[in-house]
Amino acid sequence: MIKKFVFGNPINTQAVVEDFEELDYSKLPEIFSFSEDYSEFKMELDPEDIIYGLGESLHGMNKRGFIYVSNNTDQVHHDENQYSLYGSHNFILIDRFEGFKLGLFVDYPAKTKWDLGFTDKDIMSVSVEEPDYKLYIVEGETALDIIKEFRRIIGKSYKAPLWGFGYGQSRWGYKCTEDVRKIVREHKRLNLPIDSVYMDIDYMQDYAVFTINDERYPEFADFVKEMEEEKIHLVPAIDPAVKRLPGYYVYDEGVEGNYFCKDESGNDFPVAVWPGLSHLPDFFKPETKKWFGDKYRFFTDLGIDGFWNDMNEPAIFYSSNSIKKTADYLATMKDKTENLTLGELWDYLDAASGLANNEEDYKSFYHEIDGKKVRHDRVHNLYALNMMQGVYENFKEIAPGKEILFFARSSYIGSHRYGGIWTGDNSSYYSHIQLILSQLPNLNMCGFLYVGADTGGFAFNTSEPLLMRFMQISLFTPLFRNHCALGTRDQEIYQFKDIDSFRGMLNLRYALIPELYKIYTDSIENNKMMFTPLALAYPGDKKCRQVGDQLMLGDDYMIAPVTEANATGRYVYVPENMKCYIMKSHDKYRTVDLPKGHHYINIAINEVAIFVKEGKVLNLCEPGLRTE
Amino acid sequence: MIKKFVFGNPINTQAVVEDFEELDYSKLPEIFSFSEDYSEFKMELDPEDIIYGLGESLHGMNKRGFIYVSNNTDQVHHDENQYSLYGSHNFILIDRFEGFKLGLFVDYPAKTKWDLGFTDKDIMSVSVEEPDYKLYIVEGETALDIIKEFRRIIGKSYKAPLWGFGYGQSRWGYKCTEDVRKIVREHKRLNLPIDSVYMDIDYMQDYAVFTINDERYPEFADFVKEMEEEKIHLVPAIDPAVKRLPGYYVYDEGVEGNYFCKDESGNDFPVAVWPGLSHLPDFFKPETKKWFGDKYRFFTDLGIDGFWNDMNEPAIFYSSNSIKKTADYLATMKDKTENLTLGELWDYLDAASGLANNEEDYKSFYHEIDGKKVRHDRVHNLYALNMMQGVYENFKEIAPGKEILFFARSSYIGSHRYGGIWTGDNSSYYSHIQLILSQLPNLNMCGFLYVGADTGGFAFNTSEPLLMRFMQISLFTPLFRNHCALGTRDQEIYQFKDIDSFRGMLNLRYALIPELYKIYTDSIENNKMMFTPLALAYPGDKKCRQVGDQLMLGDDYMIAPVTEANATGRYVYVPENMKCYIMKSHDKYRTVDLPKGHHYINIAINEVAIFVKEGKVLNLCEPGLRTE
Repeated sequence: MIKKFVFGNPINTQAVVEDFEELDYSKLPEIFSFSEDYSEFKMELDPEDIIYGLGESLHGMNKRGFIYVSNNTDQVHHDENQYSLYGSHNFILIDRFEGFKLGLFVDYPAKTKWDLGFTDKDIMSVSVEEPDYKLYIVEGETALDIIKEFRRIIGKSYKAPLWGFGYGQSRWGYKCTEDVRKIVREHKRLNLPIDSVYMDIDYMQDYAVFTINDERYPEFADFVKEMEEEKIHLVPAIDPAVKRLPGYYVYDEGVEGNYFCKDESGNDFPVAVWPGLSHLPDFFKPETKKWFGDKYRFFTDLGIDGFWNDMNEPAIFYSSNSIKKTADYLATMKDKTENLTLGELWDYLDAASGLANNEEDYKSFYHEIDGKKVRHDRVHNLYALNMMQGVYENFKEIAPGKEILFFARSSYIGSHRYGGIWTGDNSSYYSHIQLILSQLPNLNMCGFLYVGADTGGFAFNTSEPLLMRFMQISLFTPLFRNHCALGTRDQEIYQFKDIDSFRGMLNLRYALIPELYKIYTDSIENNKMMFTPLALAYPGDKKCRQVGDQLMLGDDYMIAPVTEANATGRYVYVPENMKCYIMKSHDKYRTVDLPKGHHYINIAINEVAIFVKEGKVLNLCEPGLRTE
Repeated sequence: MIKKFVFGNPINTQAVVEDFEELDYSKLPEIFSFSEDYSEFKMELDPEDIIYGLGESLHGMNKRGFIYVSNNTDQVHHDENQYSLYGSHNFILIDRFEGFKLGLFVDYPAKTKWDLGFTDKDIMSVSVEEPDYKLYIVEGETALDIIKEFRRIIGKSYKAPLWGFGYGQSRWGYKCTEDVRKIVREHKRLNLPIDSVYMDIDYMQDYAVFTINDERYPEFADFVKEMEEEKIHLVPAIDPAVKRLPGYYVYDEGVEGNYFCKDESGNDFPVAVWPGLSHLPDFFKPETKKWFGDKYRFFTDLGIDGFWNDMNEPAIFYSSNSIKKTADYLATMKDKTENLTLGELWDYLDAASGLANNEEDYKSFYHEIDGKKVRHDRVHNLYALNMMQGVYENFKEIAPGKEILFFARSSYIGSHRYGGIWTGDNSSYYSHIQLILSQLPNLNMCGFLYVGADTGGFAFNTSEPLLMRFMQISLFTPLFRNHCALGTRDQEIYQFKDIDSFRGMLNLRYALIPELYKIYTDSIENNKMMFTPLALAYPGDKKCRQVGDQLMLGDDYMIAPVTEANATGRYVYVPENMKCYIMKSHDKYRTVDLPKGHHYINIAINEVAIFVKEGKVLNLCEPGLRTE
């Protein structure tokens, strides 16, 4: 059962695809107490209530005890003090043991604050900046019913092609075709499966979108063919911002078509990102969507069939306004630094570093929505969705009949219909292996099924054991991509010593792909979770409510990765009799039958454990070097 | 057995108090391979070797798999990507199961890099900036023998007074006497034990050391008496830097006595810290030590008997040189910001925020050591030690017969003879509860016994359950202080709802104090560990080698705190038959007898578990509101 309430004059976010009758406020659940203007509501929590949801947000599987702010942010620090990451996924599920269960979707495209028992451990408080939103209350017999019901109303999730389940190698910093060729060569030499190589911003000419640097990637069309012959998919990054450069075709078209976001006076608003000063396409206009979507022909015409949209929060390094203001201030301070007060000092030290992704900039440009001028911050969390939707819906025009791999960094519920997401710029931290585990089920319930994290960690240097443990969770996720940042340690598998063990993990992945893809498509078709918290899969088993580091995979399997440095084993709660496969590769493993209960399992650095329900079979195929 | 090797011309750090014959290089262990100039040595690691040590450094109890750099740093971010914290504790212990064991002390006061199987998972590599160091190889039958031997040669650890085991309330931001009175009043009203209130930099006049702000702390002598009558110890923070202000007595004395660090030309080197432009006392000169130590009379004459030395890495916000250079650069860029290259942009954004604690500054001033001019960076890690030593040794002059509570933020091995340390500016993170657990035994083996972490977390906002779980580890540590940063959420116990549970934890602490103090003094007298990793306490039990989140406390007890959000239980490995006390307070608990093996224990948010060996007794006294 779904109840819809409308407050104020909400923007149509497109998150919900079904129509519902709007209910009278008298039908609002009595457990909620609303502020007078309806911009905030609170609910008392039972000490044992678990709160799931909020998609890719930080902290554990149970979101309780922290504050979250839905505010799409280019945030490289995924630390415990952060409130916002790249996506806004405003669905939560409150689950009381053998009792009350409730789904809640706050359909609101600006900042939404979730205080889930942080300020007061017994109170959940949800608030929006302005009381213009839709509230959906989702009820059901079980938590999984609620999720299914919610998934139904937000529409069917994007389906990736099978090859999108292959292993992908990526890095910010592959400078030239030779860098790409080397990856393919080394994987071939060492018999390591791989399906795709990702091209980060480095392939572009001066970071201008829909260009190729001809010196570093000469004869690009031939190069794509060459890779095709190797059965390697090249997957370029596409950023939204368009370099401000008269004569550059994309810029010229953007100006001519009036496709860019405007400042208050109606001029194209200049922001700086990778290409330097640029303009952001106004994806809220249908004609911009169509135009930008058509630009992908630049690649699809060459046979390229995979894309990742980066920087689409949109990330902004600075605007012309903000850097001018800051530069003036910093210059004024030149002769005053000798004796600053502490307040002045902090301002001075932080002035420049605070330029990126700042509030002021997001309040300084405008979209045109149904002919009306709307300030960006009011619809900030929809920017990525509109970009994805435009591009996705245009694929059938520019690449008819072709299945395209498509995912993005930033998103809102609704984006899941058009593509997948990766969980953004994580770090080479053991704690970020654990983080993926928490994100998977919470993303699934928000509709995102094609998901994965930067394997090995994006920021900072990885180590061989860290990469190995990262792979042992990623080998179960639809997107399985090794990706890292410029200036960090080389992170391709072949940079390390124990190639046999890495090959074992990749072979296991490839042996699992048919089964994983089956679970994935079943999850899409039937609005199911691919990864389910144990407490939802076994609602009658109270012990499952304490399990935050294991997941059910599909209907028959359970995973329990090792996420700690130097650990060669871990505790596992087995919720029913299972056979545990402790695997070095698809064909090298030992098994142990585990009765329902607590167990300590030895899992060496080169091993991964898969638990299979009694009477079920672990379906593996013979792995190849490519998905096909 | 201890072997000493000397390379180059090392500085006498005072870390080792015994004399040893210097051995010929031919006696160097064959497992080490040295670089030609001896600035680096490597050793192959067995896959199962555990490496302990490095004092307060980051990561788990087993330090393997990461890089560490001993380089005393004011580092508020205790994240997985950091190499250096506040102290340099250059002792490690390599422990192979039923095999090879080795202690290693690199006595070197500048940057020392420990690559413990990071770059190559099988190789440990240790390197110093210049090959002027002493290397001590400590051998022994067991790991604990090695530790005892090492502890013997570095001299007996500082012994804190009993009241230093009482609960202390602290915050950066108590502005006035009323703030302090309120703490005492609220603790009294709610029957919450407390022994001390810490005064952070706010008590000073313009942050000038050895002054009191008379407006906010009027009639300070009377106020100290008033607190004395309440049996509350006031513990002021003392920073090394002296405000550059002619007419301010400490500054004038410093100039007159020639006590400050010099720039290259011999002028007093100006650095900015809290008081604005200041000078750093040159604690390497005996006369500076004596002078600065004597200044503590300002407090001891009033009856104050506790101090914490903060900022003694020394932390530097900027130097006159560095800020001038930066301000010039930023001003020059004023009209160039319109079209920066990416490289220029990063430089511009980071210029100001990179001013603090920077290399250039540390290379720009000098100490006088035995009449010789020595550049600061060559002896950086000894600054805090020399400050502590000077102050500590002078206590007998200015407060004869009095036991003084004394601890610092920064340290080097050797500091442990003069005071304790706290683990610096941690955060209100669950992962930082786990961090304390790893730091405790590794600090103990380096001589530091009076230790503790900022309970509740220093940076960012705490929550009630987080503070509760933080307390449940801190209630076992000698230093038990609730401390947090300016601008963060109020963190005193009485700010929260479940006072009964907090009172239960404080009562349990006070009931444990006699026993904890006994274990503590026994550890001092007999060079023992207060907190021991299970693998060292049970060297024959291989299962213990995977236990990174439990500790033996003294000879008879084990602790296993809950460190995860929303957890109401945890797995525990019990290495021999034990009775587990699951305690809400000293007089409200349940017990369960646990046979040797793995167990899952329910431990609610207001409970803490103490495990007692079979045949041993949990010694509790009747708790009071003060230690006396």
